[in-house]
Amino acid sequence: MPEGRNEFQLIRQIQRSTLVASPGVKLGIGDDAAVLDVPVGQHLVAATDTLNAGVHFPADTLPFDIGYKCLAVNLSDLAAMGAVPHRVLLSLSLPEADPDWVQSFTAGFMSLAEPFGVALVGGDTTSGPLSVSLTALGTVEPGRQLQRNGACAGDLLVVSGTVGGAARVLDLLQAAIDPGACSQPDRSLLDRPHPRVKLGQALTGYASACIDISDGLLADLGHLVTASGCAARLAIDTLPAASLLADLKAEQKLAYQLAGGDDYELLFTLPEQYASQINGWSGELGVDLTIIGNIEDGDGIHCMRADGTEYHARATGFDHFAAKPQGNT
Amino acid sequence: MPEGRNEFQLIRQIQRSTLVASPGVKLGIGDDAAVLDVPVGQHLVAATDTLNAGVHFPADTLPFDIGYKCLAVNLSDLAAMGAVPHRVLLSLSLPEADPDWVQSFTAGFMSLAEPFGVALVGGDTTSGPLSVSLTALGTVEPGRQLQRNGACAGDLLVVSGTVGGAARVLDLLQAAIDPGACSQPDRSLLDRPHPRVKLGQALTGYASACIDISDGLLADLGHLVTASGCAARLAIDTLPAASLLADLKAEQKLAYQLAGGDDYELLFTLPEQYASQINGWSGELGVDLTIIGNIEDGDGIHCMRADGTEYHARATGFDHFAAKPQGNT
Repeated sequence: MPEGRNEFQLIRQIQRSTLVASPGVKLGIGDDAAVLDVPVGQHLVAATDTLNAGVHFPADTLPFDIGYKCLAVNLSDLAAMGAVPHRVLLSLSLPEADPDWVQSFTAGFMSLAEPFGVALVGGDTTSGPLSVSLTALGTVEPGRQLQRNGACAGDLLVVSGTVGGAARVLDLLQAAIDPGACSQPDRSLLDRPHPRVKLGQALTGYASACIDISDGLLADLGHLVTASGCAARLAIDTLPAASLLADLKAEQKLAYQLAGGDDYELLFTLPEQYASQINGWSGELGVDLTIIGNIEDGDGIHCMRADGTEYHARATGFDHFAAKPQGNT
Repeated sequence: MPEGRNEFQLIRQIQRSTLVASPGVKLGIGDDAAVLDVPVGQHLVAATDTLNAGVHFPADTLPFDIGYKCLAVNLSDLAAMGAVPHRVLLSLSLPEADPDWVQSFTAGFMSLAEPFGVALVGGDTTSGPLSVSLTALGTVEPGRQLQRNGACAGDLLVVSGTVGGAARVLDLLQAAIDPGACSQPDRSLLDRPHPRVKLGQALTGYASACIDISDGLLADLGHLVTASGCAARLAIDTLPAASLLADLKAEQKLAYQLAGGDDYELLFTLPEQYASQINGWSGELGVDLTIIGNIEDGDGIHCMRADGTEYHARATGFDHFAAKPQGNT
């Protein structure tokens, strides 16, 4: 082996930087695979997401934030299922083996992994264009998972937090000559989304359907109503907006709210009998919850203004393979 | 949404092309995460591996073979643990959404998934440089997994199949102006390795340590002896060689056998009392098994010639971040 940092030293560095006690991990990083205990009477929940440089995050994103965000988007998928996250496997493609980069990356990763008690149990490091693939493993009680396909006519449509902020940050960064043009708190909307893990767990047994907003509100609501075989009536004047959208004209602001992706908020449907729970969840978990519409028989999404007229949205969300990306990365 | 194939149509295409009945899959492709049953009394075994175009496979590799190989290398990791593979999650980064490419890719994937009863249960498709990340999930009886760290002085060192062939194919392809210079059966050594899943399962309860050969024989044997805290004496004249190495000079041939990666054979240590099992496994599973040395007290690897002299290898295997790749990409 040549002197200096190599692939195996890199793996040991990641192993050391992410070590946490985790009783159910029978065998962690360092063998061909991890061996894990799954509690009896629980179902395994598994999600995988890849972040590519220049596609899912700007090329100048700090390695700390890449480490944070790759975990956040995967935890968000488990949150949307109402699952409890436990373990993660990490596949890291790097142009070069830079120990400082890896140190910062793992610090960002751990800043989110530790509070959620998530253990990194295995992975792969390889050379290639900067890309991070994560697989998150969690558990849920059998039959208690939240799915996209359970919405029924009459259900309320509820969203957590605010929407449109992450897409606005990205546009500001892309338009700016000076990357500092976007303040650090604003940039956090894009780089450090809060996965709504506790909220997802609170919703099990109550919400009839749930999805996280990664592609944009309209796109993800579209997935939900298609899977559920129903329609949604969206009260567009009630949509919660990130404060960063305050200086925009109404039409521009609405475009971000409807089509901007990367917010990683939860969008869920709730039988009306549980409406009184909303304030309790909001207070207990410290997250805003807004009723933004309701579910109807039929199909598709009807965007309604407060005056009762229908609004026809042009951009519907982000499609990675669309000729022209719409509203996001 | 614009007309034509988009991200969501692509996901549906993959879903349709990989559909198999799999009773333990409570929720498969199409939601934020998969929900899976893990049999009571089993441990979960999880491995992840990424293949990047131009790094892990030549850019001209057929999509069928990329689909096959990404599954093969992950099943090989589970094989090295003695685990039974069950489920896979797939993260696919593609420069463009080409349905023909995806059709061929999933056909290659299924050609290996079906005989092993492996179900694709979830994943992610995104735009980016061609890259495939897979996470394979399997099970093993508690305490029965094969690990790298169990080898003891006196154990026999055994390898399946032949070594060095995949690296030789890669060098032939890179040296050739005409990609057809390498025959299809030879190219299969690189593109379609056989994961030794049944062999790994047969070895549980017998082998004291096991690893799959992805980085090269010396490199992976190095991992095994380091983890086990022992030394290996490798009888280099006994190493099984791919027939493709037959025309090479002895020194060249040996370099491929010792340092060529990508063979995905199993390298394991076996207490001598079980030596009589070797022929039985070989006959039953139709795979050559060769005793290539033994484990000793001490550390490191001693490459011994038949005449009793020690041979000092120059290249030790593949390191993704080494200044000069050694023997393989």
